[in-house]
Amino acid sequence: MREFDLDRIPYTPAIVIDETILDANIAAMADFAAANHLTLRPHAKTHKIAAIAHKQLAAGSPGLAVATLGEAQYFIAAGVTDLFIAYPVWATADDAELLARLATDGTLAVGTDSVEAVHCLADITGEHPGIEWMIELNSGHHRSGVFSDQVVPIAQTIAQRNMTLRGVFTFPGHSYAPGEHDTAAADEAETLHAAQHELAAAGFDVAVRSGGSSPTATATVANAATEIRPGVYVFGDTQQLELGRIDYDDIALTVVTTVVSRHDAHADAPARIIIDAGSKILATDRAPWATGHGRVLGHPDARITAVSEHHGTIIWDDGELPAIGTRLRVIPNHVCVAVNLVDEVFVIDGEQRVSTWQVGARGMNT
Amino acid sequence: MREFDLDRIPYTPAIVIDETILDANIAAMADFAAANHLTLRPHAKTHKIAAIAHKQLAAGSPGLAVATLGEAQYFIAAGVTDLFIAYPVWATADDAELLARLATDGTLAVGTDSVEAVHCLADITGEHPGIEWMIELNSGHHRSGVFSDQVVPIAQTIAQRNMTLRGVFTFPGHSYAPGEHDTAAADEAETLHAAQHELAAAGFDVAVRSGGSSPTATATVANAATEIRPGVYVFGDTQQLELGRIDYDDIALTVVTTVVSRHDAHADAPARIIIDAGSKILATDRAPWATGHGRVLGHPDARITAVSEHHGTIIWDDGELPAIGTRLRVIPNHVCVAVNLVDEVFVIDGEQRVSTWQVGARGMNT
Repeated sequence: MREFDLDRIPYTPAIVIDETILDANIAAMADFAAANHLTLRPHAKTHKIAAIAHKQLAAGSPGLAVATLGEAQYFIAAGVTDLFIAYPVWATADDAELLARLATDGTLAVGTDSVEAVHCLADITGEHPGIEWMIELNSGHHRSGVFSDQVVPIAQTIAQRNMTLRGVFTFPGHSYAPGEHDTAAADEAETLHAAQHELAAAGFDVAVRSGGSSPTATATVANAATEIRPGVYVFGDTQQLELGRIDYDDIALTVVTTVVSRHDAHADAPARIIIDAGSKILATDRAPWATGHGRVLGHPDARITAVSEHHGTIIWDDGELPAIGTRLRVIPNHVCVAVNLVDEVFVIDGEQRVSTWQVGARGMNT
Repeated sequence: MREFDLDRIPYTPAIVIDETILDANIAAMADFAAANHLTLRPHAKTHKIAAIAHKQLAAGSPGLAVATLGEAQYFIAAGVTDLFIAYPVWATADDAELLARLATDGTLAVGTDSVEAVHCLADITGEHPGIEWMIELNSGHHRSGVFSDQVVPIAQTIAQRNMTLRGVFTFPGHSYAPGEHDTAAADEAETLHAAQHELAAAGFDVAVRSGGSSPTATATVANAATEIRPGVYVFGDTQQLELGRIDYDDIALTVVTTVVSRHDAHADAPARIIIDAGSKILATDRAPWATGHGRVLGHPDARITAVSEHHGTIIWDDGELPAIGTRLRVIPNHVCVAVNLVDEVFVIDGEQRVSTWQVGARGMNT
């Protein structure tokens, strides 16, 4: 990690993105996808920033995956016209106009895992011919998505409503545990293959088979999948670091924070420092296997043992505690939720400059 | 909980506040404080909404506690002029003008737990005579705050810098565990007493002794404390519910969410529904003793077993799973972080009306 004078950041806590590392992460995933003949459709819920979306498109992606209609609205306004809402959308009549515009002005696919949702969306949009469907599969994460033996009735409903089936997708989220990476990637391949087989046997072509979480993206089996949708790869975070999928040098995003309180060991309490980054910027995402609430850049043995809303408690690695007022850089556990907690991020490039990007789709939960 | 037609909420996921219950919660805590001769200085980091602050002042509070300079800026602009930044503030030169304005236009106290921070703030504000100090004590939560045997040098520094010591404060955050309520309240009383004794022996008067988390507020010992700073009491949340501090009828805030996916039991996965409320509206705060990621109003045996960013997984209590499209109300585990994830909340009053309040201090982390 290159040196940057943290006092140049106007306030703390604040999110800082190193654009050089960001660009390298975007290029590396684009290169992997190209070499393996996979479409890279990055998940934009991670960054929610138009400038980053345009970098991803410039690196070869045809469009984005998003989680919500609100995110789709933001990115089409920013000029990204090929969007896949990778979510089991349950739209209301109020959403009809926006859905029609997304499908008319651009290329739109919508996720589903039920015949009910297909009927609902067909009803409210008048079977809009531009809306394409992607059926969600459960490849072992046991969240939304159907098993391969449940997929045909949904495809039949799509056909019955005179709409278009583009393909199938899955999120192998059970890859988010140590040692589960290869198993999850294999489960994903098997599920995509099985659903393709079921659908082909029923007379349905499956042009797109989409998978690939950030941990498993580079293990995606090209003959099973045609597309991958990683999100976190642009920034990296402590989860990816502790899962062994990335190194510290791949971390593009950190939270700059100030030591506001400092306590040497006392009979009743351990030596610790308190930083001004708590759950209102780092969030509290913490997997059972996580070693803390994030990592401190340059201090791999320090541990964030607790977060309140505006406090992070750090048990320091060794030696003297940093002075009050010292600025540190913390790597959040889960970067997608950290970005969503701020309106702007600071962009640095080595020691050269500080500019800002607006998190344009922040809070677009609907 | 009274009945309200959830389809009147324009979108999901969305936060809804029942104003009748909110008002009752505000009145009950105000009555407790008045009966016990305690100043009630509500912590506004919970709600971040001017309209709620004005209700709290109308119920008898002289002012608010806030966590950040940004929150103080928002509330003084909204007409709340008595503010206590209950945090170990480390200000920079950029903050000097705002601090001077807060202390000149209103009544300002600032928290500290170090001689360094006293010197820093005195330096950047030119020892502004209007800024009063509250020394933070560690009453067992082991976050920020000093022990009572460490308090005198800070008071001496405040005097040396020609500034005013208003008193001491503590947050008995270790009350957030089952069965710890009475112990935490006793620890708080003992710590406030001990610090008062140390300071008196060194010649310092301690006019204000401030304590009182939401779980312990109504157990605060009046002869130890002069002031309480609960925050969550206005809304309630699943933590307070599972700690046994409140009942379902006290819950003023819920997240209205839609069932977007529904799966009967399968050989490989449990029966479950998926709602469109995940960590980007509920947050992931979950204490080790919590039974899930929130509770479902009217379905006390349902459990939110997992949250992704835009998905909540619910293992239903019994009987048939709700249909896709059904709207439910979820009580977040920790309401302060949920409110901070939205720009607006919907306000209902029984079946009578739906209006909105802006979460004006959302994201003000600095």
